[in-house]
This record gives sequence, structure tokens and C-alpha cells, in this order.
Amino acid sequence: MSDFTGVYPAIITPMTAAGDLNEEAFRIVYEGNVRAGAHGFWVAGGTGESVYLTEAENNRIAEMAADQNGGRVKNIMHVGAATTTQAARQAEHAAKAGVEAICAVPPFFYGVEDEAIVEYYRVVGSAADLPLFAYNLPHATGVDIVPELMAKIQDKVPQLRGLKHSSTEFHNVAAYVEMGLDCFIGSSLLMAPALAIGAVGCIDGPLCIVPELWVDIWNAHRAGDGEAALAAQRRATEFVTLSRTIPFPAGFKALCEARFEIECGDPRPPFPPASEEQKMGLIATARSQGWLDL
Amino acid sequence: MSDFTGVYPAIITPMTAAGDLNEEAFRIVYEGNVRAGAHGFWVAGGTGESVYLTEAENNRIAEMAADQNGGRVKNIMHVGAATTTQAARQAEHAAKAGVEAICAVPPFFYGVEDEAIVEYYRVVGSAADLPLFAYNLPHATGVDIVPELMAKIQDKVPQLRGLKHSSTEFHNVAAYVEMGLDCFIGSSLLMAPALAIGAVGCIDGPLCIVPELWVDIWNAHRAGDGEAALAAQRRATEFVTLSRTIPFPAGFKALCEARFEIECGDPRPPFPPASEEQKMGLIATARSQGWLDL
Amino acid sequence: MSDFTGVYPAIITPMTAAGDLNEEAFRIVYEGNVRAGAHGFWVAGGTGESVYLTEAENNRIAEMAADQNGGRVKNIMHVGAATTTQAARQAEHAAKAGVEAICAVPPFFYGVEDEAIVEYYRVVGSAADLPLFAYNLPHATGVDIVPELMAKIQDKVPQLRGLKHSSTEFHNVAAYVEMGLDCFIGSSLLMAPALAIGAVGCIDGPLCIVPELWVDIWNAHRAGDGEAALAAQRRATEFVTLSRTIPFPAGFKALCEARFEIECGDPRPPFPPASEEQKMGLIATARSQGWLDL
Amino acid sequence: MSDFTGVYPAIITPMTAAGDLNEEAFRIVYEGNVRAGAHGFWVAGGTGESVYLTEAENNRIAEMAADQNGGRVKNIMHVGAATTTQAARQAEHAAKAGVEAICAVPPFFYGVEDEAIVEYYRVVGSAADLPLFAYNLPHATGVDIVPELMAKIQDKVPQLRGLKHSSTEFHNVAAYVEMGLDCFIGSSLLMAPALAIGAVGCIDGPLCIVPELWVDIWNAHRAGDGEAALAAQRRATEFVTLSRTIPFPAGFKALCEARFEIECGDPRPPFPPASEEQKMGLIATARSQGWLDL
Repeated sequence: MSDFTGVYPAIITPMTAAGDLNEEAFRIVYEGNVRAGAHGFWVAGGTGESVYLTEAENNRIAEMAADQNGGRVKNIMHVGAATTTQAARQAEHAAKAGVEAICAVPPFFYGVEDEAIVEYYRVVGSAADLPLFAYNLPHATGVDIVPELMAKIQDKVPQLRGLKHSSTEFHNVAAYVEMGLDCFIGSSLLMAPALAIGAVGCIDGPLCIVPELWVDIWNAHRAGDGEAALAAQRRATEFVTLSRTIPFPAGFKALCEARFEIECGDPRPPFPPASEEQKMGLIATARSQGWLDL
Repeated sequence: MSDFTGVYPAIITPMTAAGDLNEEAFRIVYEGNVRAGAHGFWVAGGTGESVYLTEAENNRIAEMAADQNGGRVKNIMHVGAATTTQAARQAEHAAKAGVEAICAVPPFFYGVEDEAIVEYYRVVGSAADLPLFAYNLPHATGVDIVPELMAKIQDKVPQLRGLKHSSTEFHNVAAYVEMGLDCFIGSSLLMAPALAIGAVGCIDGPLCIVPELWVDIWNAHRAGDGEAALAAQRRATEFVTLSRTIPFPAGFKALCEARFEIECGDPRPPFPPASEEQKMGLIATARSQGWLDL
Repeated sequence: MSDFTGVYPAIITPMTAAGDLNEEAFRIVYEGNVRAGAHGFWVAGGTGESVYLTEAENNRIAEMAADQNGGRVKNIMHVGAATTTQAARQAEHAAKAGVEAICAVPPFFYGVEDEAIVEYYRVVGSAADLPLFAYNLPHATGVDIVPELMAKIQDKVPQLRGLKHSSTEFHNVAAYVEMGLDCFIGSSLLMAPALAIGAVGCIDGPLCIVPELWVDIWNAHRAGDGEAALAAQRRATEFVTLSRTIPFPAGFKALCEARFEIECGDPRPPFPPASEEQKMGLIATARSQGWLDL
Repeated sequence: MSDFTGVYPAIITPMTAAGDLNEEAFRIVYEGNVRAGAHGFWVAGGTGESVYLTEAENNRIAEMAADQNGGRVKNIMHVGAATTTQAARQAEHAAKAGVEAICAVPPFFYGVEDEAIVEYYRVVGSAADLPLFAYNLPHATGVDIVPELMAKIQDKVPQLRGLKHSSTEFHNVAAYVEMGLDCFIGSSLLMAPALAIGAVGCIDGPLCIVPELWVDIWNAHRAGDGEAALAAQRRATEFVTLSRTIPFPAGFKALCEARFEIECGDPRPPFPPASEEQKMGLIATARSQGWLDL
């Protein structure tokens, strides 16, 4: 079995009212997730406001995640950045900080050709020399790392271990698995079917609020109980639907504030803040439906 | 449990060398599929060259399918057509011919608004007064019947029973299921994961060549054996990949010719014919890999 | 100069209250357009409800258009159909009926490969042996006949003379022109800029209601008066915007009813009918703005 | 007439062999363009490697452009950045540096809702209090600033003056013009038709290599000579096609090196470098075709 399997919350990046990292809150969310059975974390990824963070912030988060973990679970630290050089610096730092793996979106904004994408991953992978996960997020990056492109990366990047697959091309999960990659599904709505086609786990933002819901799917799957997995997925989906009723990632942060009794501040602009009414309404609904008392 | 579940091959429409319906061949393929455990058929759908057939041909196929079946399994007859009037006539005829259900793509070519799509399904559904399945095939029709649109159809069309979902928006399977619809997945590559998220079965062209492969997935799923379902899906996927190495639907027809010892003629133009070399090569490979001797 | 240039209304197909061809109304619209300065017609195309018409209806329209014209202007008859055989039959009939050219959408619904598209045009082109215009309408057909594909058609189809370009890839107009093709722009909103990049004219539905507006653009362009062309285009665009306020093609038909004092009936379902209120409102606005009294 | 019209090269950002800003080379390209008749510059935009530059680099470029200009032409400085705060800081700096206007892509990577896009532009516009141009570049940003969204921006951002339109939705040029915006077309291939539909000029990378080609289009247009404008556009298009035969922006930089006798270094990774053979081949062809001796 792979070293990287199961429930990997994409952890939020809590901030203070002033907009700086809220380190204590990060550690509380981290700890709450470990306690709830998370097998690892996707750190400073999309939900973690990734490309809105400075290099120094990203580096500090890697240090906190490694320190808080103490080797209990696995941290996959996101190091993708606008330039190859910055991504490689962050990769090197993450390795020194002690994370178990790194991940990176491909070059974004400018569409570059396959060879340039491969070269980017080669440099980044080599800088950390840790297991590397590609982050396939076409709606944000403009490029779908389809199996043909992934094969080119696999051919040149010895560190490539797998991917988080957040493309609508669900059927490609099977292709990545056939290539020997550890494929995490990037949608909290699709953990059960993804496991049924060979995925190794799930990574997504809602998991860091109530990881128990996906741990249930995982356990049912491991026990070979498809019906229980489907029932658990339906329950998880119901929660996700609620969590998305106010804009990303403010809704996730509001729910984390309520569940973990922390302060997260506003998401970093251009992410819109949620109003107090929005937050209070969402939390009240979540509470009344029992999501926050698992 | 739903009346419509399991393995529903999208049956080919065999033709003679002269390009007419090959009725005897159709009956042989039909019978071979029933014997192999198919639970029903998707008749004169996409793989059956649907919109390239005349109204008279479609009607004759409905009659043959009903007659050959004799009530053993379920025929879902495709009646979609360019105009509402033709689709409704075909729906009425299909009901008289004795099929168990009808299906239809939404209006294609011209993009019409939701209300016009609902009205089309209302007229077609009422003409047959049989269970109706929408055929969600956006790459051909230009419209994705997303859950919001499906809800409008459900609201106005009492015959609506379910759908064949052939969109890349895999996650919507869960939404259709929540709406109480029987959702067949329209991709032979995705039966196992679709069952794991609540689909009732699978409909696709490759199923009519070697239905046993998908019957295995179905049986494993019913037995609650997720690992066996995944293994069976992988085997099925391997076959599908081979079957697609020559253009659609000539490849499917060539393999049916070999397996069922029939003549299918060329697909109707503008579908391209396969060359003899292409067909012989494909059949030889399929034979050497054992697919034709199940 | 090309034989095919200028203002080519995509003429509507008027129907009776019973839904049959309204031949007299067709001739009146035709004549009104000739009188207003149209240089030719796009007959039984998209606006003419093309794929919703039977083969017999298409053939009858070709006969009427040729007969009514008497060689004064140019008829480009649409013969595209679901199957190559039907399209070729219609092409042959159109030639016998006496139209000056034919046009055809590429194969639709099923996506076929380039070679199959070329073969379709080869058979259709050869059946009529008249100048052939491809109808590039990707949102309806699912395929954009990009210059690379057009070059393959040009290589194998000696009758290819040009195209109606209704893709959003406006910049390809220049490429088609460089290939020696007569490129009509398929958007009534873009005649002026298309002429400025080498197009030979404009084909679209709104042109058959008030062709004078586009004749003004054409005349300004021919006179080398860019400012007048832009002013005329702005005026035309204002009218098009109004004409689209009720669903296609009911809005165009309602305005033709008012301007030419004919009956058009309802568009053929699944096209939605316009309500009397919608029609009367649209006509009243058009009248008050002076569009119907040019 | 608008203050911002005509030929606005999107100027490259030359670098040294070590990958730092090559200030002297920047000034030489700038001066060569002014001499050739450019009416202004799009500074540190897409061609200028925008989001791959640091904040300090962007700021230094604004200073250089303002200093080198000395009020002769107009600098539109790009200040778009991942976070609103950084973009606003850069906007404020650009104003102090003395540019005539600023521009910004909308928020990229994460898709945010319209309100968040408006708020971003409001903060950025207010920080500089200079004329603001939106940069509509959907293939990079994931959002098309369609007229409806632009109207929301116009409503809340008093500094909004216009846009660079680099979307395939060419027809929207007319809509922006009707809204009273100065619309530059963002494609060097479409200056002539864009002027014919009301655009005020053209902004693109190839313009900074041989601006004379677009100055010719502009002059022909101003003289009311549509045929000359079309001929000049064809010539310009021929050059653009050549300039794109090696990857962006290395090809543009290689041609600038040859024409202006400067060193540009490699583009910043993940942009791929061009090989010496690629560069020499491109330059040789350009020279033999006379483009570098205008």
C-alpha cells in the first residue's frame, strides 16, 4: 500500500484581524483534524489561499505544519508559485522544514507548452527531493494535466509520486492509477466513487472542517462496505453543499471558527469577506444540523 | 429497487452490404446479449446510429427489439429526432410496438431555451406514456441537462423516470439520484465508480460486444465486493480502449461481426467505414487477447 | 471581383397556420429583399429552420427560390443534412432547380474526424457541381472548420468557393481570405469590421427583415468611407439587438410579418412560438423606432 | 477625440544574462518605438512578463518608463497582481512615478465573483487615481470581462477609462464602445477590423518590434483609406505569423535584440528559453524578408 492514502484535509490558513498568519489558530485546526482521524494534510494549497500568500508566509506555514505534526501524519506542502525560481526556493525550504512531501500547481496565467511544464516540475522536484504531487486544477491554471502530459512529467521527474485531481475529467483517475501514481481525488463530493475506481484518497477544503465525514467514507471503503461508503458520502455531500452557501473560502473559515473556537480573520482580498450575518447564518444552520458537534 | 437497473448495452444497428437494416443480425446480437446476462437494451441510440436513421427504420427497430425480447428484459427505445413532431410520432409507435420505455436526446443543433426543452420532453413523454429517460449527451447536443434543467423537466413531465448521463460532469450523478431519478452512467469506463455514487447501471456501446465484462462489475457490486468490482472495471476498461482504436462505430461493428458471426455492413456516412485491414487487425488483437471467447 | 459579394439575407421559411410551407409569403419576402438591394440569398439555412425541414420541403424551397429569382441575384441553397446521402440528393436537386450555389453545414451531432468531414463535402460538392460554401457554425455543429481543416477540404473538393463564418474565431477571416476563399461573415453585427479584414459580404437572419441597413454598410465600404460604414453598422446593430428580444426565429418572423404583410405561422417545434403579446410588443417597438418604414 | 488612441506597443522587459532588469536595453527599445511613431506603451503587461516580475521590478519599470518618456507619449503601466493589496501598492507607486495611466488584469487563478472583481478594481483605481484600463485576457485570467461585468466596474470605479480587449469575443468591441470606453484591441492581427468597429487603437507584443507596421494601419485608417488599411494589416499579419514561430516571449525578445541591437537574456522561467539556433533562424528569416530594416 502507498504511503499516502486516506483523508487529507486541505487546511485553511487562519489569519488575524490584521491579516497576518494566525499561527495559534492554524495549530488548533491542525490538531483537531489529527484527532478526528485525518491521515495527512494538503498545506497552503488552494483552500489555504496559496498564491495570495507571500513566500515568507508560505515558508512559515511549512515550518508550523512540520513542527505541529511531529511525524504523526503526513504533510504535503504546496510550493507552486508564479516563477520556477520561487517555487524551487519554497520547495527547498519545505524539505528543510521537515514536511513529508511537496505539491505544486503547474505554471499558471501564461499558457506554456508541455516541455516548459515538465521543466518546471523537474526543477521544483529536484529542489526538495521529496515525493512530489502535481496539483491538477485546470479551472485555475488553464491547463489540464491529462495523462499524456503527466506521462511526460513522470518520465523526467523522478520525485513524482502522484497528484490531486481536481479536473472535471473524472475518468482520468483510472489512467493515472494505471500509470502507478497515487491519485487523490480533489473533490469532497467524489471520494466514494473515486476510491471505487482506484484513487488513494481525497483532498479538499471541506475536509478540514469536519474530517470525520470523510474518515467514515474511508473506513467503510476499507471494510469493503460499499453501501456504507455511499451513505457516508451522501452525508458528506450534504455538509459540503451547506458549506458552499457563502463565498469561498470565507464559508470554510467561518465554520472552522465555530468548530475549533478560533479566529480566522477575513480571507485575503481579492477574496471577498463574508458579512457577520452570512457567517452567523451559516454557523447557526450548521449547528442546528449537528455538523459542529460530531 | 428500480425496475431499470444493471447492464444495458447500447445495441448497434447492423446493416446489410447495401446499407439497409440487417434484421437477422440485429436479432442475433440481441440474443447473444440476453444470453450473456444483459438486463436491458438502449435501442437505436448513439451507438445505434440514431439520428442517421430514417423514421421508418427507427420504427422497424422498435418492433424488432420488442418482438425479439418477448418480455424477458427491458427495451429503452430512443425516439429523439430533429423535430418534436417526429420524435412524438416515434414515441407513440414505440409504445405500440411494445417496448418497456423510451429515451430521447434533447433538441439538438439549434440551442433552444430551457422552456422549449421541457416542452419537447412533455410532448414526447405524453405521446408514449411509458417511462422516459433523458439522454444527456452534451458533446452531441450542445446542451448539458444539468440538475437545474432536469428539475424543470421532472416538474412538467410525469413520465420522466431517469437518464443516461454521458456528460463529463460526473459529480452530477449524485444530484440526479437525490432527485429520485434512475441514473445510468453513459460511460463504459465508469460503471464501478458510478454505482458507488448511486447510479443504477451502465449504458454504452462496448457493452453490446462483450456484456459479460460489465455483468461482472454489476455482480461484484451487488455482492458488496468493491475490490472485485474495481478489478472487473479495469478489465472492461482494457477492452474498451482496444475497441476504440478504430473509428466509431465501425470498430464496435467489426467486433460484433467477429463475436456474433454476423454481417454489419459499413456505418452510414458521414460515419467513415473501416478498412478491411483495420477491421482484421482489430479482430485479431481482440481474439489474441481472449475478448471474443468469453 | 468575386461573383458572390455583398448583402445575402438568410431568408426565413414562412409557414402557414397549419405548419406547411407558405410559398406565397416566401416569394413576397424574397421580392422585398431584392427590391431593397440584396445581392443574393442564403436559402433554407439556419434562419430558414434548415434541419427541421423535410427533404421534400427543402427541395420545394430550392425550386421556389430559383423560380422567383429568375437569374437576377444569387441563391446559395443549403443542402446540409444528417446523412451524406440525403445531403447529396438535396445538392443534386438544388442544381437541377437552378440555384447558383449550394452550402452545407459539416456533419453534426456525432463528431467525426476530419477525413470524414472532407469526404462528406466531396460527395455533396460533386453531386451539385456548383460553387460550394461551407457553413462554419460551431455552436450548432460541434466542429469549428478552422483554416487547417478548411485547407483539407479545399484540397479535395474542387467546388469549394468559400464559407459563411459564424464562429467566434473572428481572426480566422483573414486566414480564409489568404486561402483564396470568399468569406462571408455570419454575424449581422460584424459586417463593417469583416469587410475591413477582407470578407466579401455578410449573411445573417436579421438582413432579411431590413436589408437596407446592411446595403448601407456595403455601399459605404465600397465608397471607401469607413466612418459611414461604422455609422451604418451601429444603426444595424441597434436593430439586431431589438430583433433578438424574443426567441429565435419567432422574432425575425414576426418582424417579417409586419414589414412584408405576410403570415409566417409559428416556427417549427422544438422552436418555441412567440406569444401574441411578444409579437405585438416587438412590432410596436420596431415601428415606433422607424425600422419598418425604411 | 480620446487622449488614448493609436499604436501602443506592449513593450518587452529586457533582462540581463543574469536575469535582472536590463534598464539600458529597455530604454533603447522604448526610444526606438517612440521614433517609429508609437503613441504610447503598455508597460510590464503580458508581453512584459507581468506576473513573473517582483513588485520591486514592476516599480522600477514604471520609473524607467516615465523617466524615459518625459511626457512625449503615454505610458499605461500594468499594476495587476495576485493580491489586491499588492496591486494597489503598485498602482500608487506608478502614479508617483509619473505614468499617464494604469491597467490591470482582473483577479486571476481563483475565480471570484463579480462583486469581488469590482471591488478589486475600485481599490486599485482609487490608489492611483489615474485613468484605468481593464485588461480583458480571459485565457490567462479565467474570466471574460463581458460588457455586463464591465458595466458593474464602470458603475463603481470612476477612474475606468477603457480596456485592452484580448478575448475571442470580438463582437463585444462594439458594446464597449457604446458604453463610452476607449477600447484597444489586444490582437495585432485585428487592428484594421477593430478600428472599423470603433476601437481606438491596438496594443500587442509584436508592435514593439516593428511598430511601423501598425502605424501604417493607423495612418491609413485616419486618412479614410480602407483598402490601404487592409493592405497594411495583411503585411503586419505576415510579420506576426513569423514572430510567433518560436515560443512566446522568446521570439519577440530575439527579434528586438536584432532590431535594436540589445541583449534581452532569456525570458524568466517557467517561460522556456529559445535555443541559439531558433533565435538565429528567426532573425535570419526576418532579416531576409526585410522586417528589420524598415
